[in-house]
Amino acid sequence: MSIVLSRDSQVRVMENTVTNAEKYFGQFCSLLAAYTRKTARLRDKADQLVRQLTDFANTENPEMRATMRNFAEDLAKVQDYRQAEVERLETKVICPLKLYGAHIKQTRAEIKKFKQVQKNEMKQLEKLEKLRQKSPSDRQMISQAETGVQRASVDASRITHQLEEVIDTFQKQKLKDLQKIFSDFVTIEMVFHAKAVEVYSSAFQILESYDLERDLEDFRTKMRGVYGRYDAQPFKDTTPSPAVPWALTGQSTQTTIRSQRRDEEEEESVEHSAEEDPVEDLRGQGQTPQQ
Amino acid sequence: MSIVLSRDSQVRVMENTVTNAEKYFGQFCSLLAAYTRKTARLRDKADQLVRQLTDFANTENPEMRATMRNFAEDLAKVQDYRQAEVERLETKVICPLKLYGAHIKQTRAEIKKFKQVQKNEMKQLEKLEKLRQKSPSDRQMISQAETGVQRASVDASRITHQLEEVIDTFQKQKLKDLQKIFSDFVTIEMVFHAKAVEVYSSAFQILESYDLERDLEDFRTKMRGVYGRYDAQPFKDTTPSPAVPWALTGQSTQTTIRSQRRDEEEEESVEHSAEEDPVEDLRGQGQTPQQ
Repeated sequence: MSIVLSRDSQVRVMENTVTNAEKYFGQFCSLLAAYTRKTARLRDKADQLVRQLTDFANTENPEMRATMRNFAEDLAKVQDYRQAEVERLETKVICPLKLYGAHIKQTRAEIKKFKQVQKNEMKQLEKLEKLRQKSPSDRQMISQAETGVQRASVDASRITHQLEEVIDTFQKQKLKDLQKIFSDFVTIEMVFHAKAVEVYSSAFQILESYDLERDLEDFRTKMRGVYGRYDAQPFKDTTPSPAVPWALTGQSTQTTIRSQRRDEEEEESVEHSAEEDPVEDLRGQGQTPQQ
Repeated sequence: MSIVLSRDSQVRVMENTVTNAEKYFGQFCSLLAAYTRKTARLRDKADQLVRQLTDFANTENPEMRATMRNFAEDLAKVQDYRQAEVERLETKVICPLKLYGAHIKQTRAEIKKFKQVQKNEMKQLEKLEKLRQKSPSDRQMISQAETGVQRASVDASRITHQLEEVIDTFQKQKLKDLQKIFSDFVTIEMVFHAKAVEVYSSAFQILESYDLERDLEDFRTKMRGVYGRYDAQPFKDTTPSPAVPWALTGQSTQTTIRSQRRDEEEEESVEHSAEEDPVEDLRGQGQTPQQ
């Protein structure tokens, strides 16, 4: 009887191995799928920021415009790498974890098969015990029952070894896959983070090299320009144009006048720069990382 | 009249500057806040994964247990850096962007003040025009109105310059802050990604050095152990114990028997290892990055 109990105990260990794998692989799968979805949402938000930065760039003077466009382009590049990260997580991490469902189902079927054989062995044993109690002198019946038990026992022993192999293969595959899946996860994350460091280093340089003073000069000229445009025929003004832009003249209360020509030049240059780098082109570039 | 129109046009440029800043800083603020929230959710998911990995580790044999625990610890470390990223984004990016609300409100108030003065100038001008048309001979009234216009014009001119300075300061601060805020954003991201690369490199080594064969041997011994435990008094067995573990004997259909002593040793060693590294300790370590 004890060998039957032992087999029963062994099948429980095997079932636990499979149940445990099912439980944790299922959890890993749904958590990593959620992790991937959250990553995709982070990418979406950053993509929105890229669009806003590009829109904003178009409302700024050339210096800030170029800085913001280049910065937005780098930010878009990081999102492209994030997109690659999402796709690779789906292919190399989530898919293999999902496939475990089928794998586990198959192993469960093997265990079920074993349990039926085990049940039969138990039945034969019970039959023999009953015979021994009821008709201890019926040698022929007892002998038949003993043969039945032996046959069932051989079946159970054979299928136990088959199951042992199935579970051994299952466990080996499980451990291998765990190592592979999490190594792939780590590699995918590592590649993404390394690329992000690279692109953000470039973005940092872009922001560092932004020339605030040049931008402010542009802004002042623009303000002055708009102001001066209507001053070609001032209502009453005899003050000569100051030699330096108003913004640099301090507390002067005199009306600042600029020539019509200069204003037109300003307007033209602004329009020209706005046309040569349309937003669509920039976005197109943003979608294709250079590495 | 044209200087009034010019001022009107200038105030529109100024208003646009402020309105634009309000619009885009508002959008940047809400997008970056959303980006930070998504980052926090990514951290939460990864934290859940860390907990599951630790739970799973406790159900595995020593080799996989150690590997999964160390891997979970590294994954937790990345989340600690992500948490630092979230906090720094809130302090150095979102807060300064939020403060812009107050800054813009103040500048709007200055523009409103200017508009009132400008309105007065317009009123005085209209009054003078009416007088010139209705009573062109009333020199005294016209002279009075001209003085009124002159006074209003001086006021408008004075406040224009004040406003010009306000807008100049506003623009300068805006450009400076943009550069600062996005540089901080890039720095925070860069530091996080660099730390992540570092920790994931260690995690990769952990997974690489996992010894599958040793783990499988443990598993086989465990299976054998449970199987053998009930075989001390086998139902009917005259087969001697095989010299090698069952898993390595191939297709043998013989019942595998192990001594009671050996089983107890196995059980004891498993229990001992499970006790020496409680989950709580591991989690505690996970919350404190070593760098």
